[in-house]
Amino acid sequence: MKLDQGIIKKSKWMWENCLPHISVDSVVFGFHENQLKVLLLKMNVAKKWLLPGGYILKNESLQDAAKRVLFERTGAERVYLQEFGVFGAINRSEGFFDGYEDDLWYKQRFISAGFYALVDYTEVNVSADEYSETCEWRSIDDLPELAMDHQLIYTNALTLLRQQLSYKPIGLNLLPEKFTLPELQKLYETILGKPLNRGNFYRRMMRFDILIKQEDLRKGGAHKAPYLYSFDPLKYHESLQGLDW
Amino acid sequence: MKLDQGIIKKSKWMWENCLPHISVDSVVFGFHENQLKVLLLKMNVAKKWLLPGGYILKNESLQDAAKRVLFERTGAERVYLQEFGVFGAINRSEGFFDGYEDDLWYKQRFISAGFYALVDYTEVNVSADEYSETCEWRSIDDLPELAMDHQLIYTNALTLLRQQLSYKPIGLNLLPEKFTLPELQKLYETILGKPLNRGNFYRRMMRFDILIKQEDLRKGGAHKAPYLYSFDPLKYHESLQGLDW
Repeated sequence: MKLDQGIIKKSKWMWENCLPHISVDSVVFGFHENQLKVLLLKMNVAKKWLLPGGYILKNESLQDAAKRVLFERTGAERVYLQEFGVFGAINRSEGFFDGYEDDLWYKQRFISAGFYALVDYTEVNVSADEYSETCEWRSIDDLPELAMDHQLIYTNALTLLRQQLSYKPIGLNLLPEKFTLPELQKLYETILGKPLNRGNFYRRMMRFDILIKQEDLRKGGAHKAPYLYSFDPLKYHESLQGLDW
Repeated sequence: MKLDQGIIKKSKWMWENCLPHISVDSVVFGFHENQLKVLLLKMNVAKKWLLPGGYILKNESLQDAAKRVLFERTGAERVYLQEFGVFGAINRSEGFFDGYEDDLWYKQRFISAGFYALVDYTEVNVSADEYSETCEWRSIDDLPELAMDHQLIYTNALTLLRQQLSYKPIGLNLLPEKFTLPELQKLYETILGKPLNRGNFYRRMMRFDILIKQEDLRKGGAHKAPYLYSFDPLKYHESLQGLDW
């Protein structure tokens, strides 16, 4: 693999400005047309798919690094971003940059902090970086094979998201400001990958006590117009912290 | 602060054998005499209290590093160990080793992976290391002030443990092999820091479906002897992975 002079120069910049051995990788979820989607990059040289990721500047917190990396790929500022696990197997990135020269930044052993993000699909303008030929949303029902341990990182994020559904509210940043209960239920069903009982779902949502019923109805459907709801931001964030006992 | 020659030598060894900038810190919980306890170290020079922690060998996975660090402090091998968050604020360890010489390993910026561990109190033999004058169990109701951001790491671990009580089983590694339901309830109440309704608790435990009723009864009490239970290891571990929907 022929090494681009630009990459060598960038590698030197990395050693000077970033913490070695530590990276962040983000599993960015968006919801669009009743599909749960994930943001992926396709590498321009290796032609392999990866989660968007990056490095931590020496004068930057880990959390800020994850925010910056996400902003660079999506332009999105209103996101729910949560660190969910560290990936530290010895050989997790081994072989991936084998053709590159010896002193290259990318050949280090990296331990990566996994973040998952929930973003408003309509607010996002995805952009590739200099290593990738494309950055795009892919439905979780139609994912390409991911390189390195990114399949594991993605799977862990999805598993956690599914688990959190049962004790944390979800939907803010994934749904438009106003939505109907059937739309909210559809979001849950899409994430869980299975249908839910309407009555159970309704009772569970009411127990979270995070919804505000709006004055206006959803118009234009063939059936009786359903009520619109929005999230009560204060109660939503309390519930995010909350305990179930 | 006068620097010990042994520390300088150790620092050189660290640079050669460990990954820079990355550490692990563990919040080790044990249950004894109806108290939830946490393992702490008191530094011999700084006289400050810290969680037990350590570094990652270049040829060691992050998970193995956490296991090794825990084993060095406790001798315990049967532990539940879970990574729960990365602590990456810029100045989190700033100032703590100010008096030490310039090239010292400890003056780096460290990003630390937090692990929490549940160990069998009776199986543990705590031992201090060369930087600490004591390693001891402290009740969570009587904790000294912790240095750096270790108070935050501890608080996050306890919060997570409390949250997990509502959807994951707990008790294996914290209770003896056989226990009564009132003893299990006492463990939950101690972790949550509040009394629970006996009927609700009983129903929730039955819903987890992780207990095996034993033939023998607890003897020696003044009241009617209560039944003993043990955990069904297979169902317990299934339930650890499980979803609530």
